[in-house]
Amino acid sequence: MQRIKLLEELRKKIKEENLNAFIIPSNDPHQSEYVANCWKSITWISGFTGSAANAIITDTHAGLWTDSRYFIQAEEELKASPFELHKLLVPHTAEHIDWLKNNLKKGDNVGLDGDLYSKAKIKAIKAVFEAAELNLVICDNFLDSVWSDRPALPKNQIFALPQKFTGLSRKSKISQICDKLSGDGNSHFFISSLDDIAWIFNLRGSDVDYNPVFLAYAIIGKDKSMLFLDNSKLTDGLEKTLKSDNVEVLPYDQIDIVLASLSGNVALDPNTTSIKHYDLLDPALIKEVSSYSQHMKGIKNQTEISNTRKAMISDGVALTCLYMWLEVNHKDGNPITEVEVADKLAGYRAEQENYFGESFGAIVGFKGNGAIVHYHAETNKCATIQGEGMMLLDSGGQYHTGTTDITRTTYFGTPSQEHKSAYTAVLKGNIALDQICFPKGTRGYQVEVLARQFLWSHGLNYGHGTGHGVGYFLNVHEGPQSISSMAGGKSSTPLAVGMITSNEPGFYKADDYGIRIENLVLVVEDQKTAYGEFLKFETLTLFPIATNLIDFSVLSKTDVEWLNAYHKKVNETLSPFLNESQKAWMVERCKEV
Amino acid sequence: MQRIKLLEELRKKIKEENLNAFIIPSNDPHQSEYVANCWKSITWISGFTGSAANAIITDTHAGLWTDSRYFIQAEEELKASPFELHKLLVPHTAEHIDWLKNNLKKGDNVGLDGDLYSKAKIKAIKAVFEAAELNLVICDNFLDSVWSDRPALPKNQIFALPQKFTGLSRKSKISQICDKLSGDGNSHFFISSLDDIAWIFNLRGSDVDYNPVFLAYAIIGKDKSMLFLDNSKLTDGLEKTLKSDNVEVLPYDQIDIVLASLSGNVALDPNTTSIKHYDLLDPALIKEVSSYSQHMKGIKNQTEISNTRKAMISDGVALTCLYMWLEVNHKDGNPITEVEVADKLAGYRAEQENYFGESFGAIVGFKGNGAIVHYHAETNKCATIQGEGMMLLDSGGQYHTGTTDITRTTYFGTPSQEHKSAYTAVLKGNIALDQICFPKGTRGYQVEVLARQFLWSHGLNYGHGTGHGVGYFLNVHEGPQSISSMAGGKSSTPLAVGMITSNEPGFYKADDYGIRIENLVLVVEDQKTAYGEFLKFETLTLFPIATNLIDFSVLSKTDVEWLNAYHKKVNETLSPFLNESQKAWMVERCKEV
Repeated sequence: MQRIKLLEELRKKIKEENLNAFIIPSNDPHQSEYVANCWKSITWISGFTGSAANAIITDTHAGLWTDSRYFIQAEEELKASPFELHKLLVPHTAEHIDWLKNNLKKGDNVGLDGDLYSKAKIKAIKAVFEAAELNLVICDNFLDSVWSDRPALPKNQIFALPQKFTGLSRKSKISQICDKLSGDGNSHFFISSLDDIAWIFNLRGSDVDYNPVFLAYAIIGKDKSMLFLDNSKLTDGLEKTLKSDNVEVLPYDQIDIVLASLSGNVALDPNTTSIKHYDLLDPALIKEVSSYSQHMKGIKNQTEISNTRKAMISDGVALTCLYMWLEVNHKDGNPITEVEVADKLAGYRAEQENYFGESFGAIVGFKGNGAIVHYHAETNKCATIQGEGMMLLDSGGQYHTGTTDITRTTYFGTPSQEHKSAYTAVLKGNIALDQICFPKGTRGYQVEVLARQFLWSHGLNYGHGTGHGVGYFLNVHEGPQSISSMAGGKSSTPLAVGMITSNEPGFYKADDYGIRIENLVLVVEDQKTAYGEFLKFETLTLFPIATNLIDFSVLSKTDVEWLNAYHKKVNETLSPFLNESQKAWMVERCKEV
Repeated sequence: MQRIKLLEELRKKIKEENLNAFIIPSNDPHQSEYVANCWKSITWISGFTGSAANAIITDTHAGLWTDSRYFIQAEEELKASPFELHKLLVPHTAEHIDWLKNNLKKGDNVGLDGDLYSKAKIKAIKAVFEAAELNLVICDNFLDSVWSDRPALPKNQIFALPQKFTGLSRKSKISQICDKLSGDGNSHFFISSLDDIAWIFNLRGSDVDYNPVFLAYAIIGKDKSMLFLDNSKLTDGLEKTLKSDNVEVLPYDQIDIVLASLSGNVALDPNTTSIKHYDLLDPALIKEVSSYSQHMKGIKNQTEISNTRKAMISDGVALTCLYMWLEVNHKDGNPITEVEVADKLAGYRAEQENYFGESFGAIVGFKGNGAIVHYHAETNKCATIQGEGMMLLDSGGQYHTGTTDITRTTYFGTPSQEHKSAYTAVLKGNIALDQICFPKGTRGYQVEVLARQFLWSHGLNYGHGTGHGVGYFLNVHEGPQSISSMAGGKSSTPLAVGMITSNEPGFYKADDYGIRIENLVLVVEDQKTAYGEFLKFETLTLFPIATNLIDFSVLSKTDVEWLNAYHKKVNETLSPFLNESQKAWMVERCKEV
């Protein structure tokens, strides 16, 4: 096998470099979740294509660690691979580092590429290694000599996003960051995160699938800003515009030299700055901060919010077209595959104003495929939606007016009591989380149980978080906030007015069916009382929730009120954008229960 | 004023020692929450008598930091004091350390007594000081030269608690700890926590009000255990018994010498070990662990659990006597003071089997006094329970069969809709938390919102945590778990089978009324499914919940079912221990709603 040979070569190199193990992560030097092909090194070496994994290679073991979203996929993809699957007990934890601690011997050397690990990650790894007396060896492009057909860096065009979409000019954003720099007594802000750079500079690109970002680093200084990117991606006009905004464009690979030569304090976020870049800076100048831009970007401005409402209408219309088409075909007995559903939906979205592309590869899972949380249907291998069964559809669009992410679960035929019971528990969780009013300062980890409580009471659960931040025509997963049970990370960021987060409880019965109901919610003000300033969620997503799967006997009065109010809003908001048959379909789907 | 003079003397000493500030905490060298009089230095210097505070003295400022439970009390007590009150925004945070950071200048020296600060606290303080370029100066009994009338160490008798109460012999407990020592490759376990020591050695004392503990340190080793205490507190017989269990008794103050001379790895918890003791040890020998005994003590054994059920019956009977007595007197128009209620209740508890004392000073708050969370009524100053009004009663007993802690809120007369609305929100929160089923591994911070959600929806809230661990004939507040919104501390400990925790949401309207409903709950197994091992709470506390304060229109069907099932259990369990008139009273209080 090809991969066995690659692994042999890599092991040879590991031995030559006097290492006992080498770790490969799934991210890029910008700490991105989704990466350009040139950084898909885990796929290259192991065959696994999921977005979150770590691989470890020693002379006797090749292991791949991923979380429960990817267990089924990884088992499938690693069948013909020399890599052994390690299932993470807790998502996003460094269990592979513990494996090294438990399986290597004192004094062993463990290598990794310095540009792929943030300063914060290295700190955590070092703490474990020091206790276990392992040596960390930071390497530079270690894989290059073995990875002969490594893809080149992407070279896609960059374009400016007008202020009618962004709400704030890049000069204003830069100026706000400079205010923060001054306030903290710093001279420069160094940024690696691609979505932060796109947001600050009001630019978009397409270097990474589904994420409208471009490869770049940036340094914002009091005197000028520097943007490090391949300037063949810019039109002359755009480069001039940037210059007139006091933004100097420098080659992507010059970031190293410039960082090493900076004087004055440099503010950076250790969670997104690679150890390679961190170590290039004069340690006396480094001021570790929580990324200025991540928080600014997370709080959507009024323009972004009102545009996002438009994107939600576009999405609702596209989904109406899709489900009507699907229902007719299903009724007529026409075999429609999962891939066709995804393609058709992308087509309907493409008909909408300001559409740019999908915000991720749509997940269409019929019956057992719905239980694979990050399932991606493939032509000739996927299921046909025919006859009875549950269908989970999780999809999203990138519009100049915002990023969407919606999941609906439908049932063709007559659902069983088990289906209804599980679906209703998921729905009740979604409603309970949606309805919570909470004092300012409340964090995602505090409220997550609201979404899980009804499943737990049936002895059911789901293996993913409940909510992620969503960008504005940017990454469908973004910080600084999240709604999950794991305190300490994003879910410890207070939920603040203007943040957009998903609300997506689910339930998955392996090989049988998957249920997920996902809306995007905006944090808005509720009331101020003697006991605090209270906030609440406003649901942004606009599409009916299937009611034939509901066990009405367990809905509370407030559940029913919520559902009717939501459907009323969906119908009233979408109706002006629908034709007559669509209107009739929508009225039926949104009728009072 | 006497206190102004004391402060002057202390400032003189601070200057002499070349310090710019000195910090005084409210704990003792054992990191206790409640302390013997000789460590009540904050009360001595400032007049504040609450259980949680920090004081800072500089040449221009004398400040006292405490949390919202104590705001009203502190304002009152500090009126005639040179100390200024700083109200903590978030309970149990080190905002006084931030004050030092913001108000001292670079290079300033800040002193504190090394025996009163844990290694973990010093680490946190050092991190702030290093960033602010302040110097930490660790002192030794700094206050002694000024505190001329400092009380002596208490000398109360220690007694053994028989195995019928403890369930496990001290030899078994020591042996379990030795197993942990061996497993971790350590030779000794050093313990400062008074309740851990009392629990391990099956001994109790009365050196600290309400907590049946005694001053001691302990070192458990593979060969023998050492108990450092004033042996005049032991009978000869008890000392012999300890010796036969391989426990050597050494003088309390010899701990320093013995620690300094230990060889072999020493396991200790940095959260409970003072920096003074930490620094006496050879750094190479120190192995920081999460206290072995704290977790063992937190998981109650079957004997402790079945005994605690008996203590709950005793408590329920005592409370029945109290409320019947109070109702008769209130009806007859006899003026009963808050202090009389507390005393009468202590008297009724004292009539119960295996009673030892109160687990804390009962909080009896009529009308506005109920809004003072840690109110302590005083003779000649307290309110008289007469006419209409809300009464909050929070009390607990120490029995050889366990520790209790219960709060009930009652209303004399006809409550208003506002009263009912707030009370019902508190009750619904208590029920929602009580009813949750949760997967193994769930932490207190995840479930706390269940208790707050209904208050939040009305723009109401409360300024304290929702649940604390409760000891077995030990401290009414103990670790390792808690139920609060602050992740990172005790509320990050998974709730495990056998843990006893309080469930006590409340609501307080200043100068008007206070509401709290508190039961103790035991974590028990629920069901094992394909999706995990699920746990739930079992309510241990047995006493009716006032129903005349309930707004039944907002109770859900499950709320009503819970209430009826609870009252049925209370009535059936207590009835055999009541006389005929008490039985009738109880039937009435527990009737179906």
